[in-house]
Amino acid sequence: MTFDAVDVIRTKRDRGELSDGQIDWVIDAYTRGDVADEQMSSLAMAILLNGMTRREIARWTAAMIASGERMNFAELSRPTADKHSTGGVGDKITLPLAPLVAACGVAVPQLSGRGLGHTGGTLDKLESIPGWRAALSNDELMRQLDDVGAVICAAGDGLAPADKKLYALRDVTGTVEAIPLIASSIMSKKIAEGTGALVLDVKVGTGAFMKDLADARELAETMVALGTDAGVRTVALLTDMSTPLGLTAGNALEVRESLEVLAGGGPADVVELTVALAAEMLAAAGVTDVDPAEKLKDGTAMDVWRRMIAAQGGDPDAELPVAPEQHVVKAETSGVLSRLDALAVGVAAWRLGAGRARKEDPVSPVAGVELHAKPGDQVTAGQPLLTLHADDPSRFERALESLADAVEIGDAYDATPLVIDRITA
Amino acid sequence: MTFDAVDVIRTKRDRGELSDGQIDWVIDAYTRGDVADEQMSSLAMAILLNGMTRREIARWTAAMIASGERMNFAELSRPTADKHSTGGVGDKITLPLAPLVAACGVAVPQLSGRGLGHTGGTLDKLESIPGWRAALSNDELMRQLDDVGAVICAAGDGLAPADKKLYALRDVTGTVEAIPLIASSIMSKKIAEGTGALVLDVKVGTGAFMKDLADARELAETMVALGTDAGVRTVALLTDMSTPLGLTAGNALEVRESLEVLAGGGPADVVELTVALAAEMLAAAGVTDVDPAEKLKDGTAMDVWRRMIAAQGGDPDAELPVAPEQHVVKAETSGVLSRLDALAVGVAAWRLGAGRARKEDPVSPVAGVELHAKPGDQVTAGQPLLTLHADDPSRFERALESLADAVEIGDAYDATPLVIDRITA
Repeated sequence: MTFDAVDVIRTKRDRGELSDGQIDWVIDAYTRGDVADEQMSSLAMAILLNGMTRREIARWTAAMIASGERMNFAELSRPTADKHSTGGVGDKITLPLAPLVAACGVAVPQLSGRGLGHTGGTLDKLESIPGWRAALSNDELMRQLDDVGAVICAAGDGLAPADKKLYALRDVTGTVEAIPLIASSIMSKKIAEGTGALVLDVKVGTGAFMKDLADARELAETMVALGTDAGVRTVALLTDMSTPLGLTAGNALEVRESLEVLAGGGPADVVELTVALAAEMLAAAGVTDVDPAEKLKDGTAMDVWRRMIAAQGGDPDAELPVAPEQHVVKAETSGVLSRLDALAVGVAAWRLGAGRARKEDPVSPVAGVELHAKPGDQVTAGQPLLTLHADDPSRFERALESLADAVEIGDAYDATPLVIDRITA
Repeated sequence: MTFDAVDVIRTKRDRGELSDGQIDWVIDAYTRGDVADEQMSSLAMAILLNGMTRREIARWTAAMIASGERMNFAELSRPTADKHSTGGVGDKITLPLAPLVAACGVAVPQLSGRGLGHTGGTLDKLESIPGWRAALSNDELMRQLDDVGAVICAAGDGLAPADKKLYALRDVTGTVEAIPLIASSIMSKKIAEGTGALVLDVKVGTGAFMKDLADARELAETMVALGTDAGVRTVALLTDMSTPLGLTAGNALEVRESLEVLAGGGPADVVELTVALAAEMLAAAGVTDVDPAEKLKDGTAMDVWRRMIAAQGGDPDAELPVAPEQHVVKAETSGVLSRLDALAVGVAAWRLGAGRARKEDPVSPVAGVELHAKPGDQVTAGQPLLTLHADDPSRFERALESLADAVEIGDAYDATPLVIDRITA
């Protein structure tokens, strides 16, 4: 059966439901280039404004999976579990989490991306480790999963190529913020990757993609349903992203903090979320008799980290680079730090050089923001609140602009829980 | 000031109002190629679904006019008036109307288009006259307007090139049916053309672009406001398009019927609408002492027609071509013809070869549908209702399919007036 692109667009434009045939055809034809970019972007805008039913989203996801190859971890001796975060500021959790879960007996095939905009990318962070490389062949990936149990590497081009093409299009056409398209983009890659279990960290707050709890919940529910229907044991945590995670935002800065967590220390919120996500991954993979917090304390997670980094050419003992230029922001008054805005810190880190504006831009390994206090802490006028790190002092001015309204010092702090809710099928 | 395409798209996507600066920039950048097709189509879909204010539509129209040249008829010895129809089935009114209005002392610079889909194109109709050519230079146009008083020719590429590019994009991206974009597309060309007065024939009914009276009224009011604000004396008639105009739909068939009207005869509805539109054009141009109905009867309109056709290389005495293949559709029962659907007849004429599916397709001069009865007429079982005309008998089958539910014969006909309403500033 053949379809017409304008008919498909009109169906969604006029608030109709796309048929399975229409969805299969439009994704396949777009991947092959028979549906033009200008047709897909108009369809994407109609989807953003008029929505999709759960059935449409499931079929759309399946069609994107069918556009490429599928991986299969069934031959591994261990169960597999993966984690996906919708992205936040200071979100380095993947770094301690993958070796921690592997140390507990579950293999972690963490296919990751690079950062775009104010949220950092896991691969960018690891590339601040001298020698480490992100690209692995499928064979190397399987071997490392068998040997070490944890891999953090770049997703290959073979998984869901329709998504790759569509994501780049959405980025330039104002159609990123559509829950059906976000959910199908994330889940098509994770399902094609072949993980047995998946834990989603859906961030909500100023520094997250979803500013609003209701939207975050809808996204989480949509993704959990998609994963479950595809046979992946999927659970989601809704977690707070109104303030940065931990005390660092920036590539080498976040690796350093991750090493503190793997050494049994580190900021309380990073430890809490790492352990919470590890427990979910282990439970989803059927492992219930191991306490992940123990594996951080006894050094076994750090052992896996060292082997994981070394397996990809990195030197786990190498010195991490440090920024040549630093600028300290001090507290203007004394009181309780009542707000330290995640988005403002993320934009500052980005402007300092930690992130990229366009896909092809390089990132600085050393740039970023270091926090000396967290919301709820008592601060004294004149004490250091933030240290900005950059390669070049000319970066400070615009970073400081983005921080202008980021800090509030008052009488009290209205604490929000880090893990807001848990969504299951 | 510079803008970002994604910001402009997001503004409209999120139901905001585009600023003058944003509109000027996006139209100019799109014309230059700095805003990509996939960005403009996503913006067009957001405009279709979220609408535009009158201020935005006016600015959008002005920006499209500014993308090209403007013509000026101020040096002519006569006032000018133009007519635009939103398109219908059997709508040959321009053919008798332009010479009729010229015969009454008002110059008519009728820059026309070709047909696409089920509505015919004025230029396609005239090209069934041997020797007639649609393309004129601006100098030829001015000379003919001075000498003959009436020109029907192809719009040059210099008028509103932004609209030309945007119209082609909307056609393939499901974004044609947006009232702000339809209104600005029509009015940008008419204002740039430089006519002093403009009468809009906004069709409503199954054979029209606007199926619904409220939509047609909104389109008419929007266009009248745009023209008036730009200094063009503009009025609109809302006219019925639930059944074809006159007794023919097809290129040479419609020229033949137009000649009957110019000879003082012809179908009553075609005469009524021609005279009504002529009266509006004359009034808008300030000429109130001439009765256009007289100029049809006394042959002066026909004289102008002959000079107008000859000035563009056509032979007004040439035989019009006739279809080699004809198929008669007969009445199945006796009674009153209560419905003869305009869209069905339009699609049938199109499938017979009178119209084109793609811009580059040729059209048949002879193909079309001839009506032997109009709604309200008493018919007898077995009498001819329609004659289908084609170059090739293989065309009949699909044309007959489109006519399957087009005809209703019953007890009574619920007459609608041809001119439904008149919209002024």
